[in-house]
Amino acid sequence: MMSRTYAVAVAGATGAVGETMLRLLEERNFPVRHLRLLASERSAGTSLTFRGEEIKVEQLGHGSFEGIEIALFSAGATRSHEFAPAAARAGAVVIDNSSAFRMDPDIPLVVPEINPDALAGYRTRGIIANPNCTTIVMLMPLKPLHDYGRVRRVIATSYQAVSGAGAKGIEELRQQTLAWASGRPIEIRTFPKQIAFNVIPHIDAFQPNGYTKEELKLVFETRKILGDETIGVSPTTVRVPVFTAHSVAMNVETERKIGADKAKELLSKMPGLVVMDEPEADRYPVPLMAAGQDDCFVGRIREDLTNERALNLWVVGDQLRKGAALNAIQIAELLIDRYL
Amino acid sequence: MMSRTYAVAVAGATGAVGETMLRLLEERNFPVRHLRLLASERSAGTSLTFRGEEIKVEQLGHGSFEGIEIALFSAGATRSHEFAPAAARAGAVVIDNSSAFRMDPDIPLVVPEINPDALAGYRTRGIIANPNCTTIVMLMPLKPLHDYGRVRRVIATSYQAVSGAGAKGIEELRQQTLAWASGRPIEIRTFPKQIAFNVIPHIDAFQPNGYTKEELKLVFETRKILGDETIGVSPTTVRVPVFTAHSVAMNVETERKIGADKAKELLSKMPGLVVMDEPEADRYPVPLMAAGQDDCFVGRIREDLTNERALNLWVVGDQLRKGAALNAIQIAELLIDRYL
Repeated sequence: MMSRTYAVAVAGATGAVGETMLRLLEERNFPVRHLRLLASERSAGTSLTFRGEEIKVEQLGHGSFEGIEIALFSAGATRSHEFAPAAARAGAVVIDNSSAFRMDPDIPLVVPEINPDALAGYRTRGIIANPNCTTIVMLMPLKPLHDYGRVRRVIATSYQAVSGAGAKGIEELRQQTLAWASGRPIEIRTFPKQIAFNVIPHIDAFQPNGYTKEELKLVFETRKILGDETIGVSPTTVRVPVFTAHSVAMNVETERKIGADKAKELLSKMPGLVVMDEPEADRYPVPLMAAGQDDCFVGRIREDLTNERALNLWVVGDQLRKGAALNAIQIAELLIDRYL
Repeated sequence: MMSRTYAVAVAGATGAVGETMLRLLEERNFPVRHLRLLASERSAGTSLTFRGEEIKVEQLGHGSFEGIEIALFSAGATRSHEFAPAAARAGAVVIDNSSAFRMDPDIPLVVPEINPDALAGYRTRGIIANPNCTTIVMLMPLKPLHDYGRVRRVIATSYQAVSGAGAKGIEELRQQTLAWASGRPIEIRTFPKQIAFNVIPHIDAFQPNGYTKEELKLVFETRKILGDETIGVSPTTVRVPVFTAHSVAMNVETERKIGADKAKELLSKMPGLVVMDEPEADRYPVPLMAAGQDDCFVGRIREDLTNERALNLWVVGDQLRKGAALNAIQIAELLIDRYL
C-alpha cells in the first residue's frame, strides 16, 4: 500500500517540532523519496541529518515547493499564512502545525484516531490543520468518553512544558536553571516571567474576556474536532518548568453517567492512549516518563465526589510528538493511505 | 491590649514551618516573654537565633511544656498526637499545624479572617487546629464569594511547592537540580518521582476512592471552616518544582450569579487577600512573587464560558506563611486578644 514514495518538505525544520518531525519520518519509515528542509533566513544554511545523510536547510520562500507532494509546516502562524497557500497552489498537500487555519471552516482539523473522516475536506484548499498541542492531548481521553456518554462540560487545567514555546522555551528554562545553579543573575527573554522554579498562568495573548488565546483554542478546537458545538470547555492554561510533555487535569461531565470502572475500560480501548492508573503502586503518568513517547497516558481516573455524572482524570502526552509532529505525520500517513 | 507577655514553645522549630514561625514571631513583635524551642532527637542540641539571641533547641518530650502558655506545634501528626494533649494538660493552649486534630468535632479549625468565632471552642480540649496549607490559600478567595453567592461546587487543581513537604522537600528539589546542572545522576528520596523538571499528581497517601489524603483535606476542611456541609469540592493536587508558594486554579460555582466585576469587588475587600488582575499589563500572581509575602494573591478572574453561575480564578499564597506559620500566629494573636 505504501510502495509509492513522496517528495516531502518540512518548513520550520530547525525548530523543536521540525526536528521531531525529522526523527519521526525516520522512525516510522515514512515513504520519503526526496526531503527538502526549509527554515527562516536565520537558520538557512545549517545542515540536519536524515537517514544518515546531511541535508542543507534552505530558506523558506514562495518558490520552495516546486515538485513537493507533502509539505509539513511548523514555522509559526505568520509564515503559514504567507507560504502555505503558495505550497498548496504548487501542488503540495500542506499539513500545518500552526494556528493559522485551524478554525477555517474549509480546512479540516484532524486527529487521526478521532476524526479521520474529516480529512476528506482537504481537497478544497489543499491544507489540513494540525490541532493545538494541548487540545490533542486533552482529546485523546475525551473522545471515547464522548462517544459513550456525550461530554457536556470539561474543566481543563494544564501544566504545559516549555518546549511548547519551541527551542527557545527549552533554552530559557535551561539557561535560567544553570544561572540559578551557579549563582548568576537570571535573565528573562522568552516567557513573561521567570519560568525556573515558577509557574505562569499565561500562555499566548490575553483576550478581552480574560482568557488567553491558548485557552480559547482548547474551547473551539475541541468542538470542531469532536464535531459537537454544544460541548463546553472551561480552560486554564499554565506554563510549568518541565522540558517536554504537557499534563492536563480534567473534570469531565457527561450526559450519561460513566463511572470510574467503565471509564477505564473505554479509555483502555482508545488507540494511542495508555491507561496508567495503579495508585497503590505509585503508577500514574508524569511528564518525565511521557517525554519521548508516542502514546499519551491517562491516570488518576476518579468519580467526582460532587457530581455523579462527572469524572476527574489526569492525562499526559509528549506535546512535540502526539501534540504536534507525530499527529502531523499520522495525518500524512492517513492521507497517503486514503487519497494519494 | 497586648501589654501582657507569654511563655511560648515552638515544637518542630527546626523545620521549614517552624523556622518561619520564629521569623514571624520577630517580625510581628509577638508578645513573647520566654521562648522554648523543641524538636526531635535528631535536631535537638542545635541553636536558632531569636531577637538576636541564640536559643538552644531541646528535645521534645512529655515534660517540655511546664510553664508554657502558648504551644505552636509543627512537628507532624504523629508527634502532635503524642505530645499536644500533654501540652494542653500542662496548661498551654496548643495551636497545631498538623492534620492530627483538624477534623475532630471538639477542636476548632480556624482561619482568623474567615471563622474567628470558632476559636471559642478551644476551651474544650485546649487545642486549636491550623488548616492544611492548600485549604487556607483556597479559602481566602472562597470566603467572600461564599458570603455573597453561596458556593455550591469548587473544582480545585493545585500547583504545590516542594516546601509543602518541609525542609527535605526543598533539599530534594535543590539537590536534583544541582545534579542535573553538573551532569550527575539524580537521586529520589523524598517525593515518589523526580520533582526537578517534572510535576507529580500525588501528594500524601492514596485512599480507596482514588483520591489522596491531601485532596480529601481540601474537601472536608473547606466544609468545616466555612461551616457549610453542602459545599462540594472536587480536588486534584499536584506537586510542582517550585520552592515556595502554592497556586490553585479554581472553578467556583455559586447559587447566586456573581460575575467577574462583582467578584473582583468582593475579593478586593477580603483582608489578607490582594487582587492582582491586570492581564493587559502581565499582572497576575505567580509563586515566585508570592513567596515571602503575608498576603495571598488572586488573579485571572474570569466568568466561566460554560456556566453563568461559575467563575474561574487563580490564587497564590506562601504556604509556609499564610498557609501555615502566619495563620498559626494569627490564631495566637486572636486568642490573646479575645481570651488570654
